This record gives sequence, structure tokens and C-alpha cells, in this order.
Amino acid sequence: MAERITPRAESYSDWYIDIIVQAKLADYSPVKGSMVIRPRGYAIWERMQSTLDRMFKDTGHVNAYFPLLIPMEFINREAEHVEGFAPELAVVTHGGGEELEEPYVVRPTSETIIWSMYKKWIQSYRDLPLLINQWANVMRWEKRTRLFLRTTEFLWQEGHTAHATAAEAEEETLKILNIYQKFAEEYLAIPVLTGKKSASEKFAGAVDTYAIEAMMQDRKALQAGTSHFLGQNFAKAFDVTFQDQNGELDLVWASSWGVSTRLVGALIMAHSDDNGLVLPPRIAPYQVVAIPIFRDKNKEEILAYTDKVVEQLDPSVRHTVDTDNSNSPGWRFAEWEMLGVPVRIEIGPRDMQNSQVVLVRRDTGEKIPVALDDLRERVNTLLQEIQTGIFQRALQFRSDNTHVCETYDQFTALYAEDGPGGFAEMPWDGDPETEARIKADTKATIRVLPFGNEEKAQGKTDPVSGKPARYVAIFAKSY
Amino acid sequence: MAERITPRAESYSDWYIDIIVQAKLADYSPVKGSMVIRPRGYAIWERMQSTLDRMFKDTGHVNAYFPLLIPMEFINREAEHVEGFAPELAVVTHGGGEELEEPYVVRPTSETIIWSMYKKWIQSYRDLPLLINQWANVMRWEKRTRLFLRTTEFLWQEGHTAHATAAEAEEETLKILNIYQKFAEEYLAIPVLTGKKSASEKFAGAVDTYAIEAMMQDRKALQAGTSHFLGQNFAKAFDVTFQDQNGELDLVWASSWGVSTRLVGALIMAHSDDNGLVLPPRIAPYQVVAIPIFRDKNKEEILAYTDKVVEQLDPSVRHTVDTDNSNSPGWRFAEWEMLGVPVRIEIGPRDMQNSQVVLVRRDTGEKIPVALDDLRERVNTLLQEIQTGIFQRALQFRSDNTHVCETYDQFTALYAEDGPGGFAEMPWDGDPETEARIKADTKATIRVLPFGNEEKAQGKTDPVSGKPARYVAIFAKSY
Repeated sequence: MAERITPRAESYSDWYIDIIVQAKLADYSPVKGSMVIRPRGYAIWERMQSTLDRMFKDTGHVNAYFPLLIPMEFINREAEHVEGFAPELAVVTHGGGEELEEPYVVRPTSETIIWSMYKKWIQSYRDLPLLINQWANVMRWEKRTRLFLRTTEFLWQEGHTAHATAAEAEEETLKILNIYQKFAEEYLAIPVLTGKKSASEKFAGAVDTYAIEAMMQDRKALQAGTSHFLGQNFAKAFDVTFQDQNGELDLVWASSWGVSTRLVGALIMAHSDDNGLVLPPRIAPYQVVAIPIFRDKNKEEILAYTDKVVEQLDPSVRHTVDTDNSNSPGWRFAEWEMLGVPVRIEIGPRDMQNSQVVLVRRDTGEKIPVALDDLRERVNTLLQEIQTGIFQRALQFRSDNTHVCETYDQFTALYAEDGPGGFAEMPWDGDPETEARIKADTKATIRVLPFGNEEKAQGKTDPVSGKPARYVAIFAKSY
Repeated sequence: MAERITPRAESYSDWYIDIIVQAKLADYSPVKGSMVIRPRGYAIWERMQSTLDRMFKDTGHVNAYFPLLIPMEFINREAEHVEGFAPELAVVTHGGGEELEEPYVVRPTSETIIWSMYKKWIQSYRDLPLLINQWANVMRWEKRTRLFLRTTEFLWQEGHTAHATAAEAEEETLKILNIYQKFAEEYLAIPVLTGKKSASEKFAGAVDTYAIEAMMQDRKALQAGTSHFLGQNFAKAFDVTFQDQNGELDLVWASSWGVSTRLVGALIMAHSDDNGLVLPPRIAPYQVVAIPIFRDKNKEEILAYTDKVVEQLDPSVRHTVDTDNSNSPGWRFAEWEMLGVPVRIEIGPRDMQNSQVVLVRRDTGEKIPVALDDLRERVNTLLQEIQTGIFQRALQFRSDNTHVCETYDQFTALYAEDGPGGFAEMPWDGDPETEARIKADTKATIRVLPFGNEEKAQGKTDPVSGKPARYVAIFAKSY
């Protein structure tokens, strides 16, 4: 660890970038706003991919691949869609040495190209539902970028489903929201709030957008995944009808949903500390690193003992052995801490004599001597304890930083320059003008309207407008 | 199976497209030259991906992701590279509503952007080797396209490795060629020839290109994968040097290698027949389909028996059950034949009475009655027999259609309008002009210079030029 990681207290945003660069998760590229995902960062994304892919397939979804380029004219067909995406498009104007008759855009999202195909594939209710997901790169020409969190190109999955009824499409939308929540909480150990977005924050072309929202360690919110009920908007734009069981023609109903490499950024920001990355065991590429400490004279013995130690591990535990002792033990421990491996096994001469090892938890630093015979079980339970521990700590942090605001003064104090920030729960009259005023005053926006919040709003007053509340919204400053 | 598949004898190219469209493997898109890979086609690609990915990782490679866009200027840095790729580039000239100061190209391959990063990452021999692979989409503006075989956008993997010595980079190049051969032969059941390309057929920017070449059923060759020794060409273009163990600065050595969704086309063309797709079991998304034959009155019994049958299968066997009897048994059998599932299990009332089922091999049509108790073992061995059978048939076909030519008359007769085609083995003097003349005369090109061919050429004469042969080359017309 040649360079120092900026402490969070000094600069949270420098700390974040330092971890990414020093742990070699990603790097800046010569392409403005695009990043390179380096092998260690990509390994985390691969684990996210394989986990989500299994969850999607277990719920009946299949993968496909649609073109990167989209005829410009397609984007224009859905009024809100073009309004939302036109400012962010990258445009291909030349191909094969000639100017193209019609320009193409690099997909910012694939609703339009996919629904142009669904028109060919859907005629009857028998063709429905279509439950298709795509793993792909997309491009949005962002002015201000930040590694993983906001880049002009990013990797994601985008699901695009087609249904015979509104109810089915809405059920799908919520089913996926559930999968995203489960994935965030059980794998990434990031607690998330779920709910609907306000009209001003919804996807361009959606009827309703649902999201999972996480709290980062600087108490700002990060939207970690969205699932949209699209109604018949794209079916209308691409004239996709089907014959129902009674022989009547109707427009097809739709959902779309996605999570991206932004999740890697969320993972870093949610759990890591001033010593580097902290990875929950279920998503960590390596869960355990064994570090034999030796000198030339006892190298053979110690390495032989290390083999014995590693053989004890459950075969399902993803592990590696660091046999490079060209640096001091302290340097090596710090390096593996920086890389976020959940458990390190220190193996020294005294451990060998005592037929034991020392386990060190990355998240708490706790040192646990364990007899070789108990190692397998202890590592297995420890990995579970760490997974739960990381989640509980994040949950506690969110709870400590969520404030119920009854007055607008309470609210504005939260988001003042030297205010504590965090999530604020406050009644809202449902008026976009009130929402806009709050944003102008404080930079805080509505992150979600949680499920059941309308009931909770009954009898309450919006402290900003003084009008009756329709919702109880969760506000925060956000990434 | 609503529509007829054009028989191969009538039109091999129509047959190929009919299978793809009717088995719903892919579809034409509204983007010129780009295709949509439909779920059934993508499932085959996913199996190819996961198998290759494991083979790469088992040999020490890691995955990463580099930007889609490449500064135009990068492409120009390597003279041969720009000459090869400039005519095929798609160019992004506008982003975020503004004309860009410098245009970007959509990657046709990623050597340039990756070596621009390697310059940042490589300082010392301790940073080497770098063994990085990327799964990505790439774009080459092709004039004439064909589903899977040649499309403007395609999916592939591209490995890019960096080494301290030429010998290591060459060893890597051949190691990957070996992996490609093993994958083609053991998984896709496609026998391939391996060897070096002639200078005129090598990758733009390579010192040496090695390839695996397969024979399709129309006896044309298909290049199914390439592995390039790049020498120091890209290190030179991007000024990537390293300090060796003696403290001397040297340019880094490189390899690159790739296979693409073209392999799905190769798989279809190599094995399928006039009834549709034929998939080797190791790559088939479903290896077995169980088809219960029932009427309303015996539906429950037969489906219960079907459950019993399916429970007998080895858990590792990928299977599905077709319970939709809205069409006749014959229609259903034909449909599953068209989809290429290697083994179908027919389950009728008589089978139930006799505690048996009938297995039907997709590749030969052979019907095999099997007692329920023997099912597991019989299916397991049958899948192996089919895998081997498909490979052996393709090997025999290639052998039957490979001709040793001692005179140029023999050679030109092979590739005449009504000639049999196939592979021709013929001595070559190594002169590009001779090679060009052969191509002009016959459209046949050198597919590979097999390993050890130079020894074989000793004392032989090139029948075209009359000069001493330096090589014994394999020629063919190709895709």
C-alpha cells in the first residue's frame, strides 16, 4: 500500500476515489467520462451478475441481445422518452467511410429497439408474457462523472417484459423490485428503502417508477435500482397489439427494470472504511486469504502447514493464498485489508506449533485464534456473522440518520450546510411545486414514497405548503 | 412447425437462414446489418461463454471491461491496424447535443484502447504478465451480412495479454489456440484444423495469426477463432515499456485472441439437417425433452408417470417437459427436432403400462425403448454417444472432402463451378503473388499453414509457380 487513502472525515469523495484507484477496481480512461473496470472491480461485477442472473432465471426470465445502435427516429416516438434522453445521446453519423442517411444513437436504454421487435413477435395472447432480460453496455452523455456512480458508458441489465394485462405488468414490476431488494440486502448487505418515485423523478416514458434507495456513509441517498410500470406507452409508440382470448385487439402492457455497475460504487460507499474496501462475504470474489508468515529457514514447513490449513476450508469458500513475503507481515495485512477480503488467516511459526491459526475479521478487526480442527466450522459461521454484521451496522446507521420532520424548520436544518443530512420523513401535499421548492431550498429530493405511506398521510399537513398531506415522503440529498 | 425448412440440396444458404428464423435463434433488426439474438440463440451463446470463461480462468486469465468508444487517433497509430480497420468503422461525432472536438470510433477490436491503459499499468517486469480477457460487443461496418456469421455488431471475447519476452507471448498465443481447438472439438463437436495464417490473411497489426478452421456441410471453410502474436507492435504504438530484471528498458510483448457469436453460426452449419437444428449435448441448452402423449381421460396418470420418468434423470442433465398437447404428437416431435434437443423421451400409455419409455436420438433418428430402471444410465451414455457421434460424422465428412493436390489442374477442378469444393492440400512457394493468382482463379484462399508443414514441403514444388515449395498449405473457399 504505497499511497495513503484519504480519511472519510477529511474528504468523503477523495476517500471513495482513493479506494477505487488503490484497490485497482477501476481507472480513468482516455475516453471522456468512460472508465475502465479493472479485473478486481470486474470480479465483483461478475458475482453480482451471476447472482442476479440466477434470480431472474428462477423467476422465468430469459436473456437475449438487441442492437447497440438505435435509429434516431425511434427515440422520438415516445414523447416523454425523447425529452428525457435526447440531451444525453451519443450519435453515430458515419459508417464504413460514408455519412449515414439516418443517424443512429448508441442505446441509452433499449425500450424503443426492443418494442420495435416485440411488434414482430407478438400477435396473440399466446405469445405473452415475454420475460426478456439483456446484459449490455449503455451510454448516456453525462457532464459530470464519477467512477462507477455516473459514467458515460456503463454496464447493466435491462429487463423488458410484455403482458396481456395491466395487473400482470404491475405484478412483474413489483416482483423485480422485490428481487432487487433481496439482492441488495442479502448479498450486498445494503439495507434499502422501497417505494414509488414522485412524478418528477420517474423514468422518461414510465407510468410508475419504483426504486430501491440506499444510504451511503455520508448520509446521502443512492438510487440502486429501478423497476418501471410502463403501461401501454411503448406499445402505443410501436403499435404493438395482440389478440386476446375473446379475439379482441388490445395494446400490450409493459415493464422495464435495471441495475448497473453503479452497484459496485454503492457497495464501496456503503461499507468501506479508512483502511480500504470492506466486502460482504456473499459478494466478495475472495472470502478468505491465507497469509503464511515465514523466513527462508522455515519456509518449507510453514508452507506445508498452510496447505494443511487451506485443505480444512469448506470447498465452497472462495480463497487465495498469499505466499509473496517480499514485504513485511504488516504491509501484507494492510494490503489485504485494503482489498476488502472478509477474513484473513494469519499463519505463523507459533500457530504451526500450536496447531492453530489466527482469523482476523476485516469488518471489525477482531482477532480470533482457532484450532485447526475447528477451522472449517468457524470460518463458515464467521462468514455468516460478518455478512449479518455488515448489514446490521448499515441498518443501524440508516436508522440513526433517519429523521421524522414535523416542521419545515426541522427539515431545512437537516440539510443546511453544516446540517447532519440523512433521510427525512415528511408529509407532502403531492404538488410538484412544493417538491420543487424544497429542492431549491435544500437540494433534498423525494427518494421514495414508501408502500402504505398514503394511509400514514391521512390527517397530516404538509409543513411547507400548509395544505393537507397526500403522502409521507422520504427525502434526502442524493447521488 | 408452421413453415417448411428449405432442404440443403435446394439452397444451403436458405436452409441456414430458415433454421435460424424458425428455431427463433435470431432475427433481423431495424438496424442495417445488426441482428437480434433471440433467447434460444442467446442460450447457446451463454453456454459457450460459460464454458470458455471457465477454460480461460483455469489458465490464469481474468476479465475486465474497457470503453466502447476509442479516440479515432488511437486507431491511426499502428499502420497495418488502421489500414485493416479504417474502412469498417462506425464513428460517433456528436455527444450530449454537441459536435465532439475529436470523433470516437465504436471499437472494432480493442488493442488500441487496452494498450493505452497498459501504458499506465506496466512499469516493471513485476507487473507482467497481464492476462486480461473482455466479453464485449464490437462493430465492423460490413457491406454484406449474414445472421451470426457476419454482422455489423457482434458479441465476442477478446483476450489481450502482455509479456516480458517474445517466447512467453508466443506460448500464450498457442496456449489459447489449443483452448479454442479443445472447445470446438470437445464441446461444439466441430473438428478444426489449426495452424498459421499466410501474411495476406493475418490480423491487421499482428506478427503472426493462428486460427482454427472448420469445414461446413457445403464444404466451405469457416474461420472459427484466431489467436495473434502481436510482437511489440502495439507496445511501440503506445510506448509501453518495462524495466526488466537487469534494470534495462524494453518494449512489452503481446498476444490477442478472440471468438465470437459467429461460433453459433458455425454450430448450426456444421451439424444441422433438413429437419432443423442438431445440437451436441455438451452445448445444448436442453439436452433432453420429455414429451408425454395423453388425452383428457388419461392425462393425470400420464403426467404422474412423466414426473416419475423425469425424476429418474441424472440431476446434471438439462431437461424440459413439454406438456402442451394442443398439437398432434407428430407435430410436437417435429417441433422439438427442429429445436435440436439431442434426446427426446416419448412417453405414451403403452410405455406407462410397460414401465418404459422410448428415447429418440436427434442426430440419427434411432428409437431406443428403455426400461424405467435403466433410464438414468442409458441417457447418460446416450448423451456421450451422441456427442461423439456428431463429432465423428463431422470428422469423416472433412476427411472425405479433403484432397491432396499435386497439380494445379486437380486444384482448379475442385473449385470449378460444378466442382466438389472442400479442403485442398497443396504445396506453396510462399509468394503472395502465387496466393493472389490462386484466389483470382478459384476464389480459394489459404486457410492455414498447418504445424509442421514446412518440413513436409521439403523437396516439393509449387504446382502453380513451378518454384520450390516452402509450405504445404490448406486451401478452401470460405465464409
